[in-house]
Amino acid sequence: MTTQQLHEQILQKKSFLCVGLDPDLAKIPAHLLETEDPIFEFNKAIIDATHDLAVAYKPNTAFFEAYGIRGWMSLQKTIQYINENFPKIFTIADAKRGDIGNTSSMYAKAFFEDLNFDSVTVAPYMGKDSVEPFLAFENKHTIMLALTSNEGAFDFQTLITNGKELYKQVLETSKTWKNSHNLMYVVGATKAEYFTEIRKIVPDSFLLVPGIGAQGGSLSEVCKYGMNDKIGLLVNSARAIIYASKGADFAEKARAEALAVQQEMERILSSRLQV
Amino acid sequence: MTTQQLHEQILQKKSFLCVGLDPDLAKIPAHLLETEDPIFEFNKAIIDATHDLAVAYKPNTAFFEAYGIRGWMSLQKTIQYINENFPKIFTIADAKRGDIGNTSSMYAKAFFEDLNFDSVTVAPYMGKDSVEPFLAFENKHTIMLALTSNEGAFDFQTLITNGKELYKQVLETSKTWKNSHNLMYVVGATKAEYFTEIRKIVPDSFLLVPGIGAQGGSLSEVCKYGMNDKIGLLVNSARAIIYASKGADFAEKARAEALAVQQEMERILSSRLQV
Repeated sequence: MTTQQLHEQILQKKSFLCVGLDPDLAKIPAHLLETEDPIFEFNKAIIDATHDLAVAYKPNTAFFEAYGIRGWMSLQKTIQYINENFPKIFTIADAKRGDIGNTSSMYAKAFFEDLNFDSVTVAPYMGKDSVEPFLAFENKHTIMLALTSNEGAFDFQTLITNGKELYKQVLETSKTWKNSHNLMYVVGATKAEYFTEIRKIVPDSFLLVPGIGAQGGSLSEVCKYGMNDKIGLLVNSARAIIYASKGADFAEKARAEALAVQQEMERILSSRLQV
Repeated sequence: MTTQQLHEQILQKKSFLCVGLDPDLAKIPAHLLETEDPIFEFNKAIIDATHDLAVAYKPNTAFFEAYGIRGWMSLQKTIQYINENFPKIFTIADAKRGDIGNTSSMYAKAFFEDLNFDSVTVAPYMGKDSVEPFLAFENKHTIMLALTSNEGAFDFQTLITNGKELYKQVLETSKTWKNSHNLMYVVGATKAEYFTEIRKIVPDSFLLVPGIGAQGGSLSEVCKYGMNDKIGLLVNSARAIIYASKGADFAEKARAEALAVQQEMERILSSRLQV
């Protein structure tokens, strides 16, 4: 998928919502546990209930790996289900991978070829040759951690180096890498004021924004400082949507939560397009 | 496994060799491709041929994930094979994971509980709450990236922050985390002179050292600067051992390569113990 296609989908759906799929057997409704593949059934119900409101789904690989082969099979079924039924939806493997070159090539193969995701999240610590193997795939997207939404973001990401915070250095350096046009970045919503500075460095890139919902970030603040001419934002919400109810009505409640976010996004988009 | 048990194994085998298992279907001997599970058969043959010379095996998860469910099954069979047949050998899931707290907990569950590895490699970029969920497992070990062996290590890891290189800050900060006694660190062999400074910060920790062999690092240099009273090193070699031959004799040739490294380690250990 191209970023142009993603942009078109955003305008059509009046939404830049990404739904995070973090399926936890301890949290999903009890009646699903009796099915053959509870994790897939849970994801499928969430997807069926929200696909017209969301432009992206982001399965978090940890929540599948924790269940071993069974979990990996659920992940495969989930991505296949999205690709077959909703091919216009942007898919993100939230995997936070990154290793030396020949190893990153294998991860890229795993997520872009074997599983056929549109994008994968990667960590920057190992530098250029750990990320470029992902960037080599055209019309696939590599979403690199810049400033994350967790408390530990302040341990290293905001340390000053070369007169600027490390995450800014990460953004700047990554722009010099081969095929850097295939980069997007993770920027946490819990720090909306940082978006102004970030947009000076990467004005055109899509930013994947976690931290709305359970983690407490403000959507309007993020949009105020982070949106660009092509919208340029994918705002993720996971727990607040997928665990809106633990009962038989979980999908219905998930839709209600997603709809509330989409409607706020629609208001923001329409007021922006009027300006 | 405790670090004391690992130390005892090192003294007994006169080796601190870790064999990296990076099984690539494009590189493994052709006759194995006809078996039901070529990746497992390859790993099993390498393990059978080297288990008395190595103290640790390090399956690289990328090389399994690239083959999807089939690959994950090979990974499971490989770790089970080691645990059942060679329970004293230290096992490392080279996975370079790390995410927000609840997600890192799921990764820890995947590698420490579901697969039953002794240790897992993690990336530091997301800070304290991305690593502490791994550290919560007693007698399991979290091997954090400090200074890696690839070219991209110089993109961010050696940037100066607070008057010191980032990787030194990573080492220092990590010592303040809860259960930091369960930490080990990745330090690349291609930069042996850095070990002196690193040992000032983490004198007692085990260091996992990639970069010997295909990546060109010197074993004697690493030992000169990096060894501590408890040896404190696990030196990894992958490609130079496992791909020593592409023929029917691959396991035999792998043993010969592993033996050469072990014998050099034995010489280093005996000259050290005599001092």
